[in-house]
Amino acid sequence: MIVEMRRGVTTDEVDGVVQRAESLGLNVQLNLGTDKTVVAILGSNTGQLSTDIFAVLPGVESITRIMKPYKLASREFKAEDSLVSVSGIEIGSDRIVVMAGPCAVESEEQLAKAAKVVKEAGACILRGGAFKPRTSPFSFQGMKKAGLELLGRIKEQFGIPVITEVVDPHDVSLVSKYADILQIGSRNMQNYPLLTDVGRNKRPVVLKRGFSCTVTEWLTAADYLLLEGNTQVILCERGIRTFEDSTRFSLDISSIPVIKRFSHLPNFN
Amino acid sequence: MIVEMRRGVTTDEVDGVVQRAESLGLNVQLNLGTDKTVVAILGSNTGQLSTDIFAVLPGVESITRIMKPYKLASREFKAEDSLVSVSGIEIGSDRIVVMAGPCAVESEEQLAKAAKVVKEAGACILRGGAFKPRTSPFSFQGMKKAGLELLGRIKEQFGIPVITEVVDPHDVSLVSKYADILQIGSRNMQNYPLLTDVGRNKRPVVLKRGFSCTVTEWLTAADYLLLEGNTQVILCERGIRTFEDSTRFSLDISSIPVIKRFSHLPNFN
Amino acid sequence: MIVEMRRGVTTDEVDGVVQRAESLGLNVQLNLGTDKTVVAILGSNTGQLSTDIFAVLPGVESITRIMKPYKLASREFKAEDSLVSVSGIEIGSDRIVVMAGPCAVESEEQLAKAAKVVKEAGACILRGGAFKPRTSPFSFQGMKKAGLELLGRIKEQFGIPVITEVVDPHDVSLVSKYADILQIGSRNMQNYPLLTDVGRNKRPVVLKRGFSCTVTEWLTAADYLLLEGNTQVILCERGIRTFEDSTRFSLDISSIPVIKRFSHLPNFN
Amino acid sequence: MIVEMRRGVTTDEVDGVVQRAESLGLNVQLNLGTDKTVVAILGSNTGQLSTDIFAVLPGVESITRIMKPYKLASREFKAEDSLVSVSGIEIGSDRIVVMAGPCAVESEEQLAKAAKVVKEAGACILRGGAFKPRTSPFSFQGMKKAGLELLGRIKEQFGIPVITEVVDPHDVSLVSKYADILQIGSRNMQNYPLLTDVGRNKRPVVLKRGFSCTVTEWLTAADYLLLEGNTQVILCERGIRTFEDSTRFSLDISSIPVIKRFSHLPNFN
Repeated sequence: MIVEMRRGVTTDEVDGVVQRAESLGLNVQLNLGTDKTVVAILGSNTGQLSTDIFAVLPGVESITRIMKPYKLASREFKAEDSLVSVSGIEIGSDRIVVMAGPCAVESEEQLAKAAKVVKEAGACILRGGAFKPRTSPFSFQGMKKAGLELLGRIKEQFGIPVITEVVDPHDVSLVSKYADILQIGSRNMQNYPLLTDVGRNKRPVVLKRGFSCTVTEWLTAADYLLLEGNTQVILCERGIRTFEDSTRFSLDISSIPVIKRFSHLPNFN
Repeated sequence: MIVEMRRGVTTDEVDGVVQRAESLGLNVQLNLGTDKTVVAILGSNTGQLSTDIFAVLPGVESITRIMKPYKLASREFKAEDSLVSVSGIEIGSDRIVVMAGPCAVESEEQLAKAAKVVKEAGACILRGGAFKPRTSPFSFQGMKKAGLELLGRIKEQFGIPVITEVVDPHDVSLVSKYADILQIGSRNMQNYPLLTDVGRNKRPVVLKRGFSCTVTEWLTAADYLLLEGNTQVILCERGIRTFEDSTRFSLDISSIPVIKRFSHLPNFN
Repeated sequence: MIVEMRRGVTTDEVDGVVQRAESLGLNVQLNLGTDKTVVAILGSNTGQLSTDIFAVLPGVESITRIMKPYKLASREFKAEDSLVSVSGIEIGSDRIVVMAGPCAVESEEQLAKAAKVVKEAGACILRGGAFKPRTSPFSFQGMKKAGLELLGRIKEQFGIPVITEVVDPHDVSLVSKYADILQIGSRNMQNYPLLTDVGRNKRPVVLKRGFSCTVTEWLTAADYLLLEGNTQVILCERGIRTFEDSTRFSLDISSIPVIKRFSHLPNFN
Repeated sequence: MIVEMRRGVTTDEVDGVVQRAESLGLNVQLNLGTDKTVVAILGSNTGQLSTDIFAVLPGVESITRIMKPYKLASREFKAEDSLVSVSGIEIGSDRIVVMAGPCAVESEEQLAKAAKVVKEAGACILRGGAFKPRTSPFSFQGMKKAGLELLGRIKEQFGIPVITEVVDPHDVSLVSKYADILQIGSRNMQNYPLLTDVGRNKRPVVLKRGFSCTVTEWLTAADYLLLEGNTQVILCERGIRTFEDSTRFSLDISSIPVIKRFSHLPNFN
């Protein structure tokens, strides 16, 4: 349920709505826009609640129910585009931001070379995997901590922020010591313990689309991050699984306008 | 690489193969059959190794490379069907085993009623979710620990083993205190930290097929469990995501004979 | 729009409804059940028509709108199961009918051998393709007319009815001279000129499911046959295209109960 | 089998290859490039033929087998890009060609208005359906011949070429009297009798991708047109069927570079 407050609402009036919601055991998220304040009232049974409970409170302008399963990622909660700022680089504005680099971090030499090429080619964020989720347990699983340390060194040396994947809830705080952006891979889009831990961490995070998840499921997964207070969420369309076998995945380019229409979150592919 | 030892091989001869593999930094798994012993030699670069390294060792009969990405789940490693035994119930034999029960554990009354109905109908394992991975963070996430305790009580009272899902690596030991079978849900089929922790735990485990994963990926995910030493793995086909929208998922019945042909693991749907 | 007539309705009363519909430029199909008569009133704009137009006519009991896109194939139009009779073999009853034979008719010897094996194994209808729709124009396209003649001879000799595919509207009358059942292949499920011509022909017809068509589209395609007056339609689930590549197609077994629930047409897989 | 002739080959030498192929019952297609002449030797059993049969003939430079199922649409047969010219507009060059217009032709007024808007917006080909293949037989099937006549009038009046769909082999010559480009719709991509008739017709043709066909199947369908001598084939990617339901189809943008790499045919989406 979305409670829009009147322009010029007082802090006390907003608090009144928040306290009413919390007294009912509901979860609350605030969007303090420059123009107006929006209170999202969240819970598994808000559908059964009468809107009157909040409509009568001082300072309330209007109440709408969000019919979509995602709430905090929706334009109803936040109409204006969100921007995510990483070392002064704004993601979600008109500027095209390219993140590039090797799939896996393999050596200092390899990473330094990649950083050089990537910078010269105009990309401004270096990517490289230290933890690699691999289909087979017998494949190389990444350099892990040593790979993170390499990323840290190269980042200092080349002055370029880095993005790297986190796959295990146990590793979130370790990875965020080195990464400017945490990456959640396609196979983990619906790994809720991981999403919850990354949501608590507050580092900017790229949420890759699950390779067989709908746009709706993707935005609803983003709600797990947003609910924990991490508002720096970037969506990444990386291709979906289809019957076509001449490419490894099919980039779902049509999802971009769908996301732009229904969500305020920045996205790229 | 699969090393088949001669009939009547000695322990020393098997050890010789194991030690040679370990000296090369490779992982080893043994299948001690009644007839013959098979040594699987595993690692990311076994493809580049010459088979001669092992062929010359005493007691070795033949060496084959497994061309499929899954190794321990394959018939090449273990030709005969595997059986999983849960409180005296054999899964994987000719007997049809039905596991039934509610999606989520909600109350003692509900669970007791379900246990009664399930037993009377001829099912022999009770299922019920205490931890529920939900698409939306605003949906009921399950009774968690209280739900596990309920499962524990009902199991004693009705004398029926229980299966319940584990979604977070942090919860594996807690859940296995109450569950006779751990269930890994469709969305977690490629959650490797979870697979690794469940593999170390040794409780029988049902690995549900990822709703958009191929049979090959599924068997390769089973290798994560098997590699950690958990050999009590049961596969569960639960339907795949397709374009058809009159059913929530499409049961891929054709996958059953494929699995039976290529894997020794018991499976059901 | 489905007009159910009262029990004991007169022919004049039914004619009254039919004439009213035809005067509005609508299409009419009758289901003369043993119990009651149902008139389907069909057209692209029946959704805008008031049901009162027919409700006031003598003999009318009730009027319902069919919300599904398929009408004549629906249980609303015909509640009881349809049976198709082929040389005394009833398809759609409790008896299991097996149709078997080679993909393509290649020679008299091959077909005679197949007919013998098929009969001995308990199948009661022989299949074999004389016209083969092939992905590549450079593949063997079937024996065509000579293949039909072979089917005709074997059918006489072995006393077994035959089913064979028709792919071109030009060939419908030729093929139906030899075939007891016409087969419409998966790639032609939405080939409307072909469906229309086969619908006019009145031979029993097997409509295979398009390999990427939904159940709803499939039943709506059946309406093309039924609308032309061919009521001997049998549905055949033959597998759908999915991401899984260990089998050529994925048999959508879940579609069977969906069809049984929503359609009166017999089906098999 | 692709026979590349030497530069400066004589007509007699080319004829020698053609006659040798025809004497073996094979089909032949010539690509007379400015630089060199290529002879494609086609048939269902060329895989079993020795290349020596042709290698020894005068004027032959080299022989390669095409391993892909499509032959005439492949770069092996024709390395340089094909261009299709429609009323002086070249399709397949660097110029971006936009075809626009209503789904179905409904009236002269509607079509005239569309033509005006389309021209002003910079599109240079008008599209509009006179024959509409519809999922349901109760939907409007198009104005048919009257719609074609309207297209003919508007085309004269506005001086803009038109593209329109053909769905029935019986209508190919009628439709091509009015259309500058024949369109084969997604559901007919594997309707081989239609492809064969359109291939004989020689009008430029847009072959839309079947909504669940692979790129390989699409190019192989193009071979049906090319084999009959129609070389003016344009490919149109129009979206594939996937699990995603927020858009009607998923545009497979990744298919464009795949086609450009493996085929000489112009394409658009």
